[in-house]
This record gives sequence, C-alpha cells and structure tokens, in this order.
Amino acid sequence: MKVKTLGFLLVVVFSIVCMMSALAIASEAQPPKYVFFFIGDGMGTAQRSAANEFLKSQTGESHLMFMDQFPAYGVTTTYANDRFITGSAAAATALACGVKTNIGHVGVDPNFNPVETVAEKAKKKGMKVGIISSVSIDHATPACFYAHQPSRRMYHEIAMELANSDFDFFGGGGFKDPKGKKSKKPLGDALEIAKENGYEILANKEDFMALTKDFGKVIAYNDRLPDGQALPYAIDYKPEDITLAEFTQKAIELLEGPEGFFMMVEGGKIDWACHANDAATAIKDTLAFDQAIQLAYDFYKAHPQETLIVVVGDHECGGLSLGFAGTRYASSFDHLKHQKVSFQAFTDEIMRKYKESHVGKAAFEDMIPLMKEYFGLQINGEGELVLANYELEELKEAFIQSMSGVKVNVGTSDYLLYGGYDPFTVKLTHLLNQKAGLGWTSYSHTGVPLSLSAIGVGAETFNGFYDNTDVAKKLMTIMGFEFK
Amino acid sequence: MKVKTLGFLLVVVFSIVCMMSALAIASEAQPPKYVFFFIGDGMGTAQRSAANEFLKSQTGESHLMFMDQFPAYGVTTTYANDRFITGSAAAATALACGVKTNIGHVGVDPNFNPVETVAEKAKKKGMKVGIISSVSIDHATPACFYAHQPSRRMYHEIAMELANSDFDFFGGGGFKDPKGKKSKKPLGDALEIAKENGYEILANKEDFMALTKDFGKVIAYNDRLPDGQALPYAIDYKPEDITLAEFTQKAIELLEGPEGFFMMVEGGKIDWACHANDAATAIKDTLAFDQAIQLAYDFYKAHPQETLIVVVGDHECGGLSLGFAGTRYASSFDHLKHQKVSFQAFTDEIMRKYKESHVGKAAFEDMIPLMKEYFGLQINGEGELVLANYELEELKEAFIQSMSGVKVNVGTSDYLLYGGYDPFTVKLTHLLNQKAGLGWTSYSHTGVPLSLSAIGVGAETFNGFYDNTDVAKKLMTIMGFEFK
Repeated sequence: MKVKTLGFLLVVVFSIVCMMSALAIASEAQPPKYVFFFIGDGMGTAQRSAANEFLKSQTGESHLMFMDQFPAYGVTTTYANDRFITGSAAAATALACGVKTNIGHVGVDPNFNPVETVAEKAKKKGMKVGIISSVSIDHATPACFYAHQPSRRMYHEIAMELANSDFDFFGGGGFKDPKGKKSKKPLGDALEIAKENGYEILANKEDFMALTKDFGKVIAYNDRLPDGQALPYAIDYKPEDITLAEFTQKAIELLEGPEGFFMMVEGGKIDWACHANDAATAIKDTLAFDQAIQLAYDFYKAHPQETLIVVVGDHECGGLSLGFAGTRYASSFDHLKHQKVSFQAFTDEIMRKYKESHVGKAAFEDMIPLMKEYFGLQINGEGELVLANYELEELKEAFIQSMSGVKVNVGTSDYLLYGGYDPFTVKLTHLLNQKAGLGWTSYSHTGVPLSLSAIGVGAETFNGFYDNTDVAKKLMTIMGFEFK
Repeated sequence: MKVKTLGFLLVVVFSIVCMMSALAIASEAQPPKYVFFFIGDGMGTAQRSAANEFLKSQTGESHLMFMDQFPAYGVTTTYANDRFITGSAAAATALACGVKTNIGHVGVDPNFNPVETVAEKAKKKGMKVGIISSVSIDHATPACFYAHQPSRRMYHEIAMELANSDFDFFGGGGFKDPKGKKSKKPLGDALEIAKENGYEILANKEDFMALTKDFGKVIAYNDRLPDGQALPYAIDYKPEDITLAEFTQKAIELLEGPEGFFMMVEGGKIDWACHANDAATAIKDTLAFDQAIQLAYDFYKAHPQETLIVVVGDHECGGLSLGFAGTRYASSFDHLKHQKVSFQAFTDEIMRKYKESHVGKAAFEDMIPLMKEYFGLQINGEGELVLANYELEELKEAFIQSMSGVKVNVGTSDYLLYGGYDPFTVKLTHLLNQKAGLGWTSYSHTGVPLSLSAIGVGAETFNGFYDNTDVAKKLMTIMGFEFK
C-alpha cells in the first residue's frame, strides 16, 4: 500500500512537471506583443562582416554588432519573380507580404493584385504600427509595408496611401512627390490629407525629441535631407540631425502600450553607399543601423517574453568582398577610419565647389591635400596609404574624366571603372577600400544570399536556409496572422 | 471513487506519454554511428549559390543542390589566429581540432602543440575512419585530420603520419613527396611503410571498383593526376577517372559496419578554380562534390537515426559575387555551359601546344576558333557572347602578354588583371564569367563568412552564426568526444 501511494505520488509529481513544461511551451507559442523588423537595404553578409571587422579594428574588442549576437540565424535567397538579381521593391514586397513579385512592384503580386502586408495585418489586429527609414519615407522598402502600386516610382500615389494608412508613426526621410507635381493625375497634397487624417507633422529635432505619449499619429522627418529626401549618411551626421536610433527610440516610447506594436526600421543608405562602392560610408551606416537595433535589443531585454526582433537585408549591393587582388591575403580595416565624408558629400560639396571655382584652371596637384584630408591617401611618404605609381596614374585619369564633365555611358570600359558616379570620387573610395583589402564587382545589386538574425518570441523559426518570401510567412505565422 | 480511479488512470497515461517523449529525446541524444564531414575548399555562400543557379539553368528545375536541402543551416566566421583571411591549413585545423591556429599550421596550435583531431578521436573510440580528397591526400585540408606539423609544406612528414595513422581508408589524389626527396631529413618511403602497416595501395579504377568489404586498410588514388597530384577537375573528367562520388561510395561500402565510421570528404579543387577566377570549373567541381554528398544523403535516408552529415567550406576564395558592373542587374548562368575545359587544361594542354608549335609566328587570329570552341566567346555575330570592342582589345593585350612569357609580378597593375595565371586564359574566364553576370575581386581567399548545412543526429546544433572552431567543438560534442 505504501509503495502504491509512493508510486502514485511520483506519477503525480512527474505529471505536474510535464504539464508545466507543456504549458511553458504553449505560452511561448503566444504571439509576440512587440515586433521589430529591421531591414538593412543592400546589407549582405559581407556588409555585416565588414562592419564587424571595422568595429573590432576601432574598439580593439572582439564583440560583434548587436544584430550578429542574436541566437537565431538564417540565410535567405532574394530573387524576384522576373529577375535573379532583385530590386528593393520586389524584395520588400517579399519581406512585407510573403509573395514573389516583379521588379518595381510595391505590395502587389505579379498580376498587380494588392497583397495585405504584415504591417496592415498588425494594424487591423489593433497593434500600433511604426515605419522608419533613413531614406525617403515613400521609398520602395518602407512603401511596401503600407502601399500597393504597380511601380515604386509612383511616389505621389504612395504618399497618398501613407496619408490614408492610419499607421501610428512614420519617421526618417521626407517625401519625394507629396503634391503630385510629377504625377499625371495629382490626387491632392498628401501632407495636408495626412493632417486632416490626424497626423502631426514634424521636421525639427527639438520638437521631435519633445514628443510624448499623449501625441496622436506622427509623421516626422529630419530638417536636413541632403540627397533624395533621405537622412544624411551617418558619416556626415551633424548634431542637429535626428539619427535613425533617435527615430527608433522615440517610436518605442510613443508606441509602447497595451496594444503592442509592429515596427519596421530600414537602414536605407547602406545600399546607396554600396552602389557607389564606398565601404567606409556603408559601414558607418550599418553601425548606425545597429545602434537602432541595440535600442530594440534593450527593449527586448526588458520584455523578453513579449518581444521579437528580426534583422535582415533585402539584397546584397555592390558585390562587396572582404579580399582584394592587390592586397592578396592582407586586410587593414583600420584604414577606413581615414575617410571623413561620404562619397556623396565629397562629390556634392567639396568637388562641386572646387569645380565651380576652378573653371579652366583645375589641376591634379590641388587634389593632393584633399585626398589626404578626406581619404588618408598620400602620393608620397611611408605606409600602406601611399599610392603606387599605377594607382596614381589611374587617379589622375579619373580626375581628368571628372573635370571633363563627360557622362560615363553604360556598356563602356569607363562604366566598369566608375559606374554612374563622379569618376574621381569613386576612384578615391575604390583605392581606399582596396588598401583596406576590400573589393567590389558591381555598381548594382547582386544575387548572393543574405544573413538574417533574430531574437525573442518565435525567433528559432528563422534558423535555416529559405527564401525571402518565407521571412514574411514565418513572421505572420509567429504573429498569429493568416497568410493569404 | 470512480472519479479518483479515472483521475489516476489519466495521470498514468499522461505520465507514460511524457516518459516516452523524454525517452525519445534521450535516444536522439545518442551519438551518431555514421558521420560524414564534407569540406568544400574555397566554397563560400556565393559558390554554393552560383552552382545552384547554374544547375537550375541547365535542368529547368528549381531544386537546389543536396547540400542546400538540409534542414540545419549555419554561418561561420573563418579568421585564423594570425590573419583575418585564413588559409586551408589553419581553417582545416579549426574544423578538425576546434582550435584557432596560425597560417600554415597542420593540426597544431599556435605554440606548435599537437591537438587531437575529431578523426583521431573517432579512431580511438573504435570507429572506422575514411579521408577522401580531390586534391593530393597530403594536402592541407585532409592532412589536418591525421597529421600534426608546423607547416603544410612538410608533405613528406605528413605522408609518414598518414602511413602510421591506422585510418581505414584514404582516397582521391596522390602524394607530393612520399620518399622525402624535398625533405631535409627523409624518413623513408611513406608508401612502403604504409604497406608494412597493412595498407593496400591502389591506383587503378578497375581494381578500385572491385574492392569488397574483406579488404583491409586502403590507400587509393586516381591513375591520372594532372596537376599537383590532384584529381582532374570535374569539367575535365574522362570515363577512366575515379570521381569524388565513386571514392565516397566505395568508402561507404568498405567502412559500414558495427563500429560505425567517420568520413571526411574534401572538394579540394573548388578553391583552385576560384583562385584562377574560373567560375564554370568551380561550379562543376561543386556539383561533383554535391554528387558525393547525395550518396551520403542516400545513406542517411537508410539510417536516419544513426547518421549525421555536415557540409561546410573552409573559406571563400576569389571574392566571387553574383553580379557584375558590366551586366548590372542581369544574370545569364546558362552562358557558363559553353566552357568545355578548365582554365588549367586550356593553359597546360591547348595553349601550351599552340605556343610550342607557333614560336615566332603566334597570331591572335588563331585564337578566334579556340575562344569559341572552348568558351563560347565570339568576335562577331549576334548574342551576349559577342565581345565588345574594349573587351576584344583587352583580350588581345592579354594574348600578347601570354605569348611574351613575361612573368606577372605582384604589386603591378597587371597582377590585378591576371594574378599569377596565364593572362590569356584568365582573361577568357573573366570575360565569360562577366557575361554570365559574375564578378571576382581577388586571386586569393577572402574573409567573408560561409554557409554550413547539416542533416541527421544532432544537426540542429549547427543552426546559428558561430566560428569555424565551433564546428569541430559541436561535432565532438555530438559524437560524445571530449574537447581538449
């Protein structure tokens, strides 16, 4: 009888333990209340690795970026429906909607049928929704979360959809065509309509930083939008600029609440820097993106049972590799610290001023101090940053090409050298990158599969090798949404 | 009473279910009896993806290579102890022993202390051990599983360790210095010592294919070893050659048994082809490697509870990217089918013969039919494989450089164009690769993290982002070995 009772007790205890485990598993299967979806535009595995190595070279520590410390890790294919090498619209449609579509399509399938996005599903469910990007807020990647248009170039129509989205927070860059000046059928002033729909519109750091939870819906952009209505590159940031991390921090403050939130944050100019083959600028933008991720990670640590963070790229850009023919097996990431401005600022500010003030009297000699000041490159002296004779000749040739103002055409050998960029600037970034041991193969995107990392509720689902459309499907499944 | 009985019964049933689950989990934790470790030398994520895309372009199907169908997927860093961009010896020491070591070290730590390899641990435990490589069997990657030497170049000493390893099966390429002709202190004839130690040595396909289980220990290599004692490139295979898959199949047949086995199979010439920036040859070698993996996968399907397969690269090579400045967003993997021979065979056979028979009368015009026959490249006509004028000029320049016989030195602009290879051959593979939409940045390895995939017992352990030393540590843990 005693043995029987003991047995019974043991069985009961064991059963309780089992049931508790089962309950624990079931509770883990609850959808996350807070979801962060970080998209690094143009951020492939090589871009992440370059940023990690540069970070190590500057801090002397071996820690990785926050995004690369997450426990779940996947690799995704990126191809579009109609092309192996994808574009940001087709890629973001895959990531937001879970469908393969054609190049340029925003939130619609190849037959132009709108597909509900994960952000729209979250809004419908009652969650707060935030969309943040370092490029214009109507750009392909953010647009694919709230708009449905046959072409990413329909900026006006996209802005109108934003104004009518009822999403809670839009932050980052500005609008490319809010009034429909470039549209055949203008639909009104998107910003005015947004105001009518209850949005507060801010373009001032002080006002933005003062925002508190009693505010309603917000559209906020940086005062200074130097190129294409985008935030400045991180390398060119000034104290009066709002950083991607600051936009993210404010969105967390404003959106946190009982409804939960879905937040998409794009590091959009990693791509632009990689198109121009400018590694230092891409790395600094990747690190700025990681600072935004760090804030989400801090939030996760405070709400580990309720938060999911997913970080992915949309496609690789530039064919970046961490090895170059000239440096063979050597790498010197530290050299990249010598670059002080983005290729864009160098072209648009420094070189433009020089050109305007030196019409008919431009001389390569004038470039020598600029090369050193902004890129650390020297024509004599000692060290790895001194140009070889053939490099100097190539740079002189690029300078002549720049000063000539002659456009470089696709299909020529000059296009291979300079792409569509200012020849002298791109030659400078090429030379500095090469001295660091980095090489590029393209001025466009590439089709190399990418890394994805995740932490939090359901993150383990993101382990493995899968397609970019699966990212949205996994996300929707974890969030308890139906994919259709 | 009735309710109490019912409750008791329910608890018992639930407990039994729980215990069965626990037992199932426990039984999964049993070490795998059969372990396959596939190492694609120079096989990065881009190489895998290029092979997948070429495969699709040729079969019209969307299936991936077998290695990319495995459920577990990881990404590994590859850096050596003393250099960011690793070499095959340091990388294979990490993969075989779980320690970071210096460039060139074989199975020893940075202080030259030997570290027991996973293969040695398997042998000690009583498992059968097989080592297969498409390059010479004393090359860095295979050597790191059975030898402990300060330098990978100590081929004679490595061969002596092989002869004394007591491993059960060595297959693939031959030996570079079995008698110690290049060694300061020759230790004897490694092959004679191997025979004394009970090895059967075979270098004939017919005898090899006839091998049956009653044979003892085997060292088998292909009769034809065209370069560096390695198997021919897959693109150059002849029916009388033993393929990597055939070596693998025979090893499975011979080693299967109650003791279980550990088998390392290296696709060693993916790396060599990538050094030369020859994508078609690298892809065909990757597909040949995948055929060996398919055999392991078939074996896994017959023994799913007892088998583990891990597939990884040791480092990327060449800075391959799936995008090129000239083709921008276009890709045409199908073009690669036009290449009929490896860069090596083209240089060593076709061009060597031409040079020898045309001393003083070499003419670029003679190349036109060869370019078309072996690479599909045309100087006129229609289609994407017709060279642009600037490409033709570059090719003529490379031809002159080739015929001059002048060595290309490191540190020159010509080195960027041709590396240490025959200028005309490397220019041909560059042009064909570029027309397919592929670019390269280096003739050396690169530091881009790599994909790893796995299936079978313990495979899920390989999900995530980790270092190459962790691969060995995970493998040892799964196999029940102590890491020290």
